[in-house]
Amino acid sequence: MEFSSKLLEKAVNEMSQLPGIGKRTALRLVLHLLRQPEGQTLQLTKALESMRTDIKFCKSCNNISDNEICEICANPHRTNEIICVVEDIRDVMAIENTSSFRGLYHVLGGKISPMDGIGPNDLNIQPLVEKVKQGTVKELIFALGSTMEGDTTNFYIYRQIQDYKITTSTIARGISVGNELEYTDEITLGRSIINRIPFEASLKS
Amino acid sequence: MEFSSKLLEKAVNEMSQLPGIGKRTALRLVLHLLRQPEGQTLQLTKALESMRTDIKFCKSCNNISDNEICEICANPHRTNEIICVVEDIRDVMAIENTSSFRGLYHVLGGKISPMDGIGPNDLNIQPLVEKVKQGTVKELIFALGSTMEGDTTNFYIYRQIQDYKITTSTIARGISVGNELEYTDEITLGRSIINRIPFEASLKS
Repeated sequence: MEFSSKLLEKAVNEMSQLPGIGKRTALRLVLHLLRQPEGQTLQLTKALESMRTDIKFCKSCNNISDNEICEICANPHRTNEIICVVEDIRDVMAIENTSSFRGLYHVLGGKISPMDGIGPNDLNIQPLVEKVKQGTVKELIFALGSTMEGDTTNFYIYRQIQDYKITTSTIARGISVGNELEYTDEITLGRSIINRIPFEASLKS
Repeated sequence: MEFSSKLLEKAVNEMSQLPGIGKRTALRLVLHLLRQPEGQTLQLTKALESMRTDIKFCKSCNNISDNEICEICANPHRTNEIICVVEDIRDVMAIENTSSFRGLYHVLGGKISPMDGIGPNDLNIQPLVEKVKQGTVKELIFALGSTMEGDTTNFYIYRQIQDYKITTSTIARGISVGNELEYTDEITLGRSIINRIPFEASLKS
């Protein structure tokens, strides 16, 4: 792609560093900004800059936060006895949207993935083990994606904390509410039969 | 979508103003920037800012440029007798990539579209008419998309310059090189039969 302007070329090149944004899309976005008032671009760049430089990570759970301790960890109405282990902030947002969980979170920041060069020490695992050692935690809920990397990470953490007397669980895998049996993949359907729940229990949820 | 941080929320909101970027994609992009070194975000914002504030539009053809007159208009090896009328810089880049055109361009900046509130005065049409009046231009090539808006714009410009003795043409519509007849839409196929070219002429191109 040849550009008639070095400034344009640089903006497109930087924009196309973002995941899922190719050169053509980057050009489309940059040309859109050029057609809009200058203020819109400056608002965008200012928001990105202050986000990147000023944002904090909660010292307790590693969630993104404006303060040292995030609102969830600081909330006195939530129990610190149950900790839900998730990969990143998007998982926290998804679970919070359900309003079904009143414990705390622990954000790992990724999954163990030797193929991508991510080992246990690159993740926020050690502080979780320390939390368990302190003795207030009664249950860990593993809520990582059910991929090979997710299972590996779950098992690694499990091995680190298995000597402490706490309950560990993973979120239930099964057929989505409203989905048809015939369109469900075999692994999910198989697991949902193996992990069937008493009918009386299903009436309550 | 509820965010645990106002800074994050603002960055996501600004990012999702871009066309084709929804809130979820914006969040994914912003979280990516957070995982990268701070320098990458600052490079991106700096490139966007200087692009938006310092970029110029060629005084002759309205193409994006770093100088008052763009490289194409300033090139002495190109003829100013043929002008190709295009919608925006992406069309200039596409035609330049073919290396088939040695004339100049005229970038309108859009198409006449009453539905979107874009009239002839919102576009860079008057300077084109002035150029034609000066008498050096011998041919105008209309290279706008073949939509209702493109046709309207072509016709509007044609009406403005029809009293001057210049040739006007539109780029050929037809079956793409390498495409099969059976998969071509009826309008394109119909036009390609009506506007058939002598076989000897096709041997040369």
